[in-house]
Amino acid sequence: MPPLKIAVIGSGAVGCYYGSKLARGGHDVHFLMRADLERVRSHGLEIRSHAEPTVLLRDEISVHGDTEAIGPCDLVIIALKATANAALLTLTPPLLGPKTRLLTLQNGLGNEAYLATHFGEERVLGGLCFVCINRLAPGVVEHFSQGTVAMGRHGTNPDTWTRALAETWNRCGIECQLMDDLRQARWRKLVWNVPFNGIAIAAGGVDVSVILASSELSVLAKALMTEIIEIATEMGLVMPADLIADQFAKTAEMGPYKPSSLLDFLNQRPVEVEAIWGEAYRQGRALGSPVGHLETLYWLLKALCVEA
Amino acid sequence: MPPLKIAVIGSGAVGCYYGSKLARGGHDVHFLMRADLERVRSHGLEIRSHAEPTVLLRDEISVHGDTEAIGPCDLVIIALKATANAALLTLTPPLLGPKTRLLTLQNGLGNEAYLATHFGEERVLGGLCFVCINRLAPGVVEHFSQGTVAMGRHGTNPDTWTRALAETWNRCGIECQLMDDLRQARWRKLVWNVPFNGIAIAAGGVDVSVILASSELSVLAKALMTEIIEIATEMGLVMPADLIADQFAKTAEMGPYKPSSLLDFLNQRPVEVEAIWGEAYRQGRALGSPVGHLETLYWLLKALCVEA
Repeated sequence: MPPLKIAVIGSGAVGCYYGSKLARGGHDVHFLMRADLERVRSHGLEIRSHAEPTVLLRDEISVHGDTEAIGPCDLVIIALKATANAALLTLTPPLLGPKTRLLTLQNGLGNEAYLATHFGEERVLGGLCFVCINRLAPGVVEHFSQGTVAMGRHGTNPDTWTRALAETWNRCGIECQLMDDLRQARWRKLVWNVPFNGIAIAAGGVDVSVILASSELSVLAKALMTEIIEIATEMGLVMPADLIADQFAKTAEMGPYKPSSLLDFLNQRPVEVEAIWGEAYRQGRALGSPVGHLETLYWLLKALCVEA
Repeated sequence: MPPLKIAVIGSGAVGCYYGSKLARGGHDVHFLMRADLERVRSHGLEIRSHAEPTVLLRDEISVHGDTEAIGPCDLVIIALKATANAALLTLTPPLLGPKTRLLTLQNGLGNEAYLATHFGEERVLGGLCFVCINRLAPGVVEHFSQGTVAMGRHGTNPDTWTRALAETWNRCGIECQLMDDLRQARWRKLVWNVPFNGIAIAAGGVDVSVILASSELSVLAKALMTEIIEIATEMGLVMPADLIADQFAKTAEMGPYKPSSLLDFLNQRPVEVEAIWGEAYRQGRALGSPVGHLETLYWLLKALCVEA
């Protein structure tokens, strides 16, 4: 695969982290920025990592205030909050050529379907990011650990182009796994996001180490994971037998990590309540799966969080 | 029934409200006080009511700093927080004569059993207070509405003495209903306390009018009520068919009322998490009843609240 022209829409922690790896790998990466635009133009984009060398990107990247200035791309990475999806209707069209692919790295459920509805199913890829990362300040991203992406196409198997893209990402230092069924990956990620992002907010603003240290909150996290796994299994997806233990072990390595939804909540930013808890709850209820824990957390988060 | 010598242990809103009615009805009422002792000695005990004439009691009542100064009584009213039950082991003995009855007006489950274990089953009565009331300041109680008490004996039917006591309370202006099965009343009260006290805290510190105005929180309240009713039914108790609608209608009349647990939470005082949510959850789980909503709320409250 030759170097790609890539747009990154939503230049928060996830967009900046993966976009910067692709830029350093030789791709032509254009970031759409709002609040951070002037800062990154003058000082560059810094990725401070606890696991990799810290990098500062200046000439390797382009930053823009609108998508018209970027123009048609090979790949559009969407890393916007799901709560801001309506903005994609105006942001995306200037980036589209006949073969442009859209890759959503957003959290939760429903984002691929949203893109497919508005821009055509055949363009849409989805990626799940398993990464501990925060936006520390304008133009500064803090990377704690992990970084794997599970990638696939919406509603179908990976094609040649998608396979080549995954190889390309791997060559750029992003561990990238191809998924035959993206829903499998989405639900596996919910097994972590639903309990840890949710409890972190609902238990009064606690990091994941507090949840692990509390027998009560750990029991609650396990109960929520069990509900998500049951819904996924009911949908015909295969969840690994040791998934809960594995997720707890991975979480223990994270230390006092604040999940992204908690940071959004603490900073009074919108929280993706519908994409994470709402969609999971509705799909579980529609399948007749037990959703008592999930429903309770969902309704409390709806009351606690702003969404737009 | 002749005038009774009555001790009130735990002179918060509930103890002061009912104790003052009994004192005005001609009984010899002795309040055990700590923080409010000097204030009430010098300024009296004021019940500011939105539903009844406001009263200020001075010579009609006695206040004490310890129970030795009160001595044996006919009736000991226990209106202490359930979280402070251990204190009863030293506070109660000086109040006991051979025929002394103990009446717990505490919230939640397990309080009659606690008294029965330590002071003898035959002495123990329980009362459920359906009253909207707050302690406004030292020696000042604010009464919003209601005031009915459902009273019964622990583990058995009302005897002659208990029937006479209920009549006496009615003559003192306290609407008092005798219960053949106190558990029936306890679980009916949990149908309100579990959702409204719990959601008020877990949804970020909201009064009951906010819960009623939110479709999400109302759905959650109904789901919790349904779980409590199912547990009670599983235990063989009879819950009225229209109980949920009735509880919502009563709550609508309360206006922006802050449940007592929320006030405790907001003032960083202990919350009766175990007596209300913990016991209900454990009994429901032991019966194999669905408790997903209740369990989630319980674990979150355990994390959010202090208990001692």
